[in-house]
Amino acid sequence: MAGVEFENVEEALEKGLSGRELDEVTRILYGKKLEKLEIPLAAVAAAEKAGFEVKGYIATAQREQLRAPRKVRIAAIQNAIVLPTTYPVAEQRHAIFMRIEQLIDAAALCGANIVCLQEAWTMPFAFCTRERLPWTEFAESAETGPSTQFLQKLAGKYNMVIVSPILERDEAKDEVIWNTAVVISNKGHVIGKSRKNHIPRVGDFNESTYYMESQLGHPVFDTAFGKFGINICYGRHHPQNWMMYALNGAEIIFNPSATVGGLSEPLWGIEARNAAIANHCFTVGINRVGTEAFPNEFTSGNGLPAHKDFGHFYGSSYVACPDGSRTPSLSRTKDGVLITEVDLNQCRQVKDHWGFRMTQRLDLYARSFTEAAKPDYKPQIIRDF
Amino acid sequence: MAGVEFENVEEALEKGLSGRELDEVTRILYGKKLEKLEIPLAAVAAAEKAGFEVKGYIATAQREQLRAPRKVRIAAIQNAIVLPTTYPVAEQRHAIFMRIEQLIDAAALCGANIVCLQEAWTMPFAFCTRERLPWTEFAESAETGPSTQFLQKLAGKYNMVIVSPILERDEAKDEVIWNTAVVISNKGHVIGKSRKNHIPRVGDFNESTYYMESQLGHPVFDTAFGKFGINICYGRHHPQNWMMYALNGAEIIFNPSATVGGLSEPLWGIEARNAAIANHCFTVGINRVGTEAFPNEFTSGNGLPAHKDFGHFYGSSYVACPDGSRTPSLSRTKDGVLITEVDLNQCRQVKDHWGFRMTQRLDLYARSFTEAAKPDYKPQIIRDF
Repeated sequence: MAGVEFENVEEALEKGLSGRELDEVTRILYGKKLEKLEIPLAAVAAAEKAGFEVKGYIATAQREQLRAPRKVRIAAIQNAIVLPTTYPVAEQRHAIFMRIEQLIDAAALCGANIVCLQEAWTMPFAFCTRERLPWTEFAESAETGPSTQFLQKLAGKYNMVIVSPILERDEAKDEVIWNTAVVISNKGHVIGKSRKNHIPRVGDFNESTYYMESQLGHPVFDTAFGKFGINICYGRHHPQNWMMYALNGAEIIFNPSATVGGLSEPLWGIEARNAAIANHCFTVGINRVGTEAFPNEFTSGNGLPAHKDFGHFYGSSYVACPDGSRTPSLSRTKDGVLITEVDLNQCRQVKDHWGFRMTQRLDLYARSFTEAAKPDYKPQIIRDF
Repeated sequence: MAGVEFENVEEALEKGLSGRELDEVTRILYGKKLEKLEIPLAAVAAAEKAGFEVKGYIATAQREQLRAPRKVRIAAIQNAIVLPTTYPVAEQRHAIFMRIEQLIDAAALCGANIVCLQEAWTMPFAFCTRERLPWTEFAESAETGPSTQFLQKLAGKYNMVIVSPILERDEAKDEVIWNTAVVISNKGHVIGKSRKNHIPRVGDFNESTYYMESQLGHPVFDTAFGKFGINICYGRHHPQNWMMYALNGAEIIFNPSATVGGLSEPLWGIEARNAAIANHCFTVGINRVGTEAFPNEFTSGNGLPAHKDFGHFYGSSYVACPDGSRTPSLSRTKDGVLITEVDLNQCRQVKDHWGFRMTQRLDLYARSFTEAAKPDYKPQIIRDF
């Protein structure tokens, strides 16, 4: 399949271009160049030994007189599943836990303050199969489930906030399943949770077979290391979703995802970055890597014969900044940890500079959307006759 | 100044990369490769003689059984001013008219059905000066002003719809000035007008010295060659602005602009393209070229000494498609005509595929925006304590 082995766009640019041309191409395509963050030798060694990538960048802000810099190190973690999907659920999950521990250990060596994992990180992304068992057995309580307990220990040990996107079984209400992000504090307790607001019905991703749209709104978590929201996966296609997290005060919006090359790759670098620009905040796109084969074949609504996998998860996790700059991507094929040191003061500085919150005319759009949402809405059309 | 002479990102990529790497980099950064449109020899010759660029691309759609293809050729025209800004207003304007006629002639030779010019195309972008006379003399009636009369003839002659973004003097009401796009039909009559919805107050662009936010809403013009809206310049930073044009039925949204390298260049390739993706429509970003020096010096609110120009307009006009692909850009330095043959059927095809209109939860955002627009809105924050 096209594009499975290709490793990284930015490395290709650095190899093929040089001097002034490289500078101009990267300025125009990537914004202001971000300085590299030095990765501690222990983290480099751990990554080399365990076969994953660690990259780091620094996004600065101007010095202010009255506010000290508010530097936070954000870690985005991407990974493949570890065992084949035919293994027992408990074993698959345990193997992923062990892998994640390696990646979080490396993030901790790099001084990460907030770690975000990928969507449904505890499991293969099995929703394409439309099968219930065994996949729904990966669903667990957000508050007390095994992945939450596992991460609580690491969060407390490393004094880091962890965002853990899982398949949730709401044990307290109707036992239904949700696509949820659990937020664990740097002391190791559960601060709360957020759920996926927009559920795809596209290609292999009709996830409404398993769970529906969140009713929890757009919560922002005010933590020891800043205020953030979590826009899960397909929600990145909806600009108004990003915007509501920002209107609730988010300075960082995470976008834990699971998406494949044939479907979305040219959109990947656009959407989260546009949201960072439009909302004067940092956005963090995280996508799993690898190709996941399932035991039973399935079709994909595209006229092709039944098959057992639905494409290559292309990784490419990155951070976009309010000023329009962005980090290079993690690998398209390998597990990785992306550490970005941001100064959260950049958000308000860019807000003051560009002023989109001042000029957004939110009341106009509140009225227009209210009208447009009505079934009998008459579009404003001027006809040439 | 950095970046003034650098010509074109896509040409640099084609020069520096090759084979598989070029294919993968362009697939990921630009989406599905668009076929080149053959430019008639007469247009090539005219462009060579008059020193401008003509480029053409084709954006296809799948064949349907019940709808015929709806192929439309869109021309985006970018240009520098012709005479120094010290010349008499009438002479400056006339010289631009003559230049635009050359560019529209070339567009006609390429079979253009809809032509869109850049923001305030009849004049230098003088708003940075904060001076009134002589600049406000470029303002004219949308319905009967000299530029409208000039373009009506060309529209009728070539059977093309023309979008003409001008500085408008509302002679019928209060004589105030607006930033307006006049829509002229392929028969040469004025169909209507649209005004700029979001007015910048950033750097050299506090345009509210001259005109304020539109009260005309988000009109969509249903013409002989398709339904389109016009999102003028700074409105491209507001995703909800694009969205309202799309909700009113636009299949194409033009973004006539005037913006300089230091301010916005890394954002340019992101915003209109994100809007095309998010709204299942074609978007057309158009930006003027060149550096415009004014007679009197002015400051720019950035601590630097007074100066007479405020930077390089970087052109780079392009078309983005609903499927996430986009054309390469026109030059960063030269006048140009970009012809894009689109099949408007792609809009509904992508809408059916991705389904963002179906999954957008517009009623939720209508309610959320209504609340968030209130001065005493309490953001939805979950605190860690």
